[in-house]
Amino acid sequence: MAACEKLIMENIRINNQRLLKNLADLAQIGATADGGVTRLAFSDEDIQGRNWFAERVKSPGFDYATDGAANQSAVLKSSHPDAKTLIVGSHLDTVFNGGRFDGALGVLAALEAAQTIQDQEIPLPFHLEVINFTDEEGSVMGEFGSHALTGAMTEDQLENPRGGRDALVAGMQNLGISEATALGARRNPAEILGFFELHIEQGMRLKNENLDIGVVTGIVGIRSEWITFRGKANHAGTTPMSVRQDAVMGAAEFMVKARDLTNEKFNPAVLTCTQIESKPAAFNIVPNEARFALEFRHGTEDLLDEMMIDLKNLGHTIASRLNLEFEWDDASDCRAAPAAENMLVALESAANNLGLSHQRMMSFAGHDTQMMSNFVPSAMFFVPSEAGISHNPKEYTQDKDVINGANVMLQAILECAKQ
Amino acid sequence: MAACEKLIMENIRINNQRLLKNLADLAQIGATADGGVTRLAFSDEDIQGRNWFAERVKSPGFDYATDGAANQSAVLKSSHPDAKTLIVGSHLDTVFNGGRFDGALGVLAALEAAQTIQDQEIPLPFHLEVINFTDEEGSVMGEFGSHALTGAMTEDQLENPRGGRDALVAGMQNLGISEATALGARRNPAEILGFFELHIEQGMRLKNENLDIGVVTGIVGIRSEWITFRGKANHAGTTPMSVRQDAVMGAAEFMVKARDLTNEKFNPAVLTCTQIESKPAAFNIVPNEARFALEFRHGTEDLLDEMMIDLKNLGHTIASRLNLEFEWDDASDCRAAPAAENMLVALESAANNLGLSHQRMMSFAGHDTQMMSNFVPSAMFFVPSEAGISHNPKEYTQDKDVINGANVMLQAILECAKQ
Repeated sequence: MAACEKLIMENIRINNQRLLKNLADLAQIGATADGGVTRLAFSDEDIQGRNWFAERVKSPGFDYATDGAANQSAVLKSSHPDAKTLIVGSHLDTVFNGGRFDGALGVLAALEAAQTIQDQEIPLPFHLEVINFTDEEGSVMGEFGSHALTGAMTEDQLENPRGGRDALVAGMQNLGISEATALGARRNPAEILGFFELHIEQGMRLKNENLDIGVVTGIVGIRSEWITFRGKANHAGTTPMSVRQDAVMGAAEFMVKARDLTNEKFNPAVLTCTQIESKPAAFNIVPNEARFALEFRHGTEDLLDEMMIDLKNLGHTIASRLNLEFEWDDASDCRAAPAAENMLVALESAANNLGLSHQRMMSFAGHDTQMMSNFVPSAMFFVPSEAGISHNPKEYTQDKDVINGANVMLQAILECAKQ
Repeated sequence: MAACEKLIMENIRINNQRLLKNLADLAQIGATADGGVTRLAFSDEDIQGRNWFAERVKSPGFDYATDGAANQSAVLKSSHPDAKTLIVGSHLDTVFNGGRFDGALGVLAALEAAQTIQDQEIPLPFHLEVINFTDEEGSVMGEFGSHALTGAMTEDQLENPRGGRDALVAGMQNLGISEATALGARRNPAEILGFFELHIEQGMRLKNENLDIGVVTGIVGIRSEWITFRGKANHAGTTPMSVRQDAVMGAAEFMVKARDLTNEKFNPAVLTCTQIESKPAAFNIVPNEARFALEFRHGTEDLLDEMMIDLKNLGHTIASRLNLEFEWDDASDCRAAPAAENMLVALESAANNLGLSHQRMMSFAGHDTQMMSNFVPSAMFFVPSEAGISHNPKEYTQDKDVINGANVMLQAILECAKQ
């Protein structure tokens, strides 16, 4: 590429007003009284959102298609004979009374980037596919569309979705798909160049450090466990402290020390204890059982394994000292998903082209990129969330950051064209 | 009293076989398959137990009476013109699938002591009243009979008994009493000389130190509270550890530090945390609420006040550091009940007369003596419980300890006669 051509490319920008209007228009579908959005996957509002998207990609003349998992794609075809496909996008579904940016920004910024490339008549050496993944938020299953596209979907998942089997069956029927079509939606990774996803940060790191762009080095793995301490029920008056087998005290010590271990040894990992319950339901009996949910997230499987070993040792040590039993039951496991270095470099070059400040960081939330990273070279990037608020009507990202995000998406696509 | 007469008195012993047979006979009423007893207050089994008691006291010719709270009394009358009444006894009701000794031993040992005094034709300067208190265990209210007798019963307690208002109304009807008769059952303390209660220890201290008799210096006060920590629900992935307002972590820290404080500063006090629950019910949300029951017991109201201040300070300190709210709600309060020194001395003299080893100790469980101590000079004493087990079919006290207990009761009554 000639220096002059390169300079021209780096000066291309998206159409700000078109992007902001699309965001505002889409937010009307499923709008709630307090400014939020409820567009649950598989619902009527989801279908309205999908129809809006299908209609919206008609005028630029993109090739429109859906797959067996109801993922929607709008493709800007390349004339190159050996063209692979670069996929860009996110999801249009929301949580109940969620915000206007989570997911929607990623799809609409990708669409805006594609439309800008078409407007400017820039020939790409790859097909550019803007995607809307089905049910990222997990109204019924979670990352449904990206599980299907990457071939990670299993019959077992379809049998036991978190929203219940009946909701899944009815939902698939709503969208005109079936278990069989979803399981058959796997794409051939050899035909895919890579994947980019833009998302709001849903955290405070960019705001706190006054950064424009977070370049996501990977999505944390999540280990979810059920922890149980068992002791011996006994009279809460006549049983001296020194001889108690108090299950609640075992749980409490574990939680405090697990938190301290996480902070001291595994920073920036996170660890959360929830849903604690104890037995029996009496003021005056030393509790013989305490059970709680433990969830911890870290950047690589190796680090998660190390945390798990340390946490299990901690539990056994406490149980042994307090004369309790300690049980660790795996509830679920979501693998860490590191980004592809070439895709990270493309994002950083794009931000540099735009004069935007950026920093590498991990994502502590799950996204479709998690599935895509283990399938094709992928990377995602963040723009700031005001006050870090998300999954909430108050979710907000400033116009300038919306525009920055779409321009980084545009420039990253063009960076890939240079490679 | 002449030296010779004193020696004769100190050599009087109860009828071992009669006492053991009474214990065995009574244990048949409400007997459970695994050797325990279910004789819940106000139930048909309770009525059978009461009928057995009323029948049992006929042949010695005791004056039998019941009061407005259905407390049963068998009185050995004194011929002394200014005779007050010494009350001795405990309760015949049990918990669900409880043991054969808790309560029953106290009533039957008192009865055996009275019958021995009658057999030996020993004139007493006071009326000797063997009592069976109604609903000590709290199937419906707890220490019902002793609340009524001491005038501590309130209309509010009758409105909100722990077993529910309906159970109380039906139960009182079963026993032929009413709210009005119960509230009217208060006795005149000026006419009562004092109260002794024998009970099994329900703990391990006597066994551990190889002692025969525990002389109870007082019954601990019990403070019951509901503790709530409130924080902020947030994404369990994207919220860094350092900025969380995690209510469960606040509760866990409080529980561990409250236990340590109790052990280090307030030994032998006991502290128990139970019934913990947290919100919301999700793996992936930092919990915004944790609530649990806190109960602590110590020997005097002053010590309980000091513990309460320290525990409240602890809660506020933790809440402040973790950016949480801390709530302390009083659930109930049972006043500490110190024994009367002259009654303790009588018990110690009795044990000395019998050559039994004894030690002063606190009671960490509630008993009718708790109500009686704040009404008339009272004291209770313990005999060993095998393995400290109680409220359980495995509850067991050896025959020799049963007999020791009844002999101490007999000798303590005779010690009072000397005073």
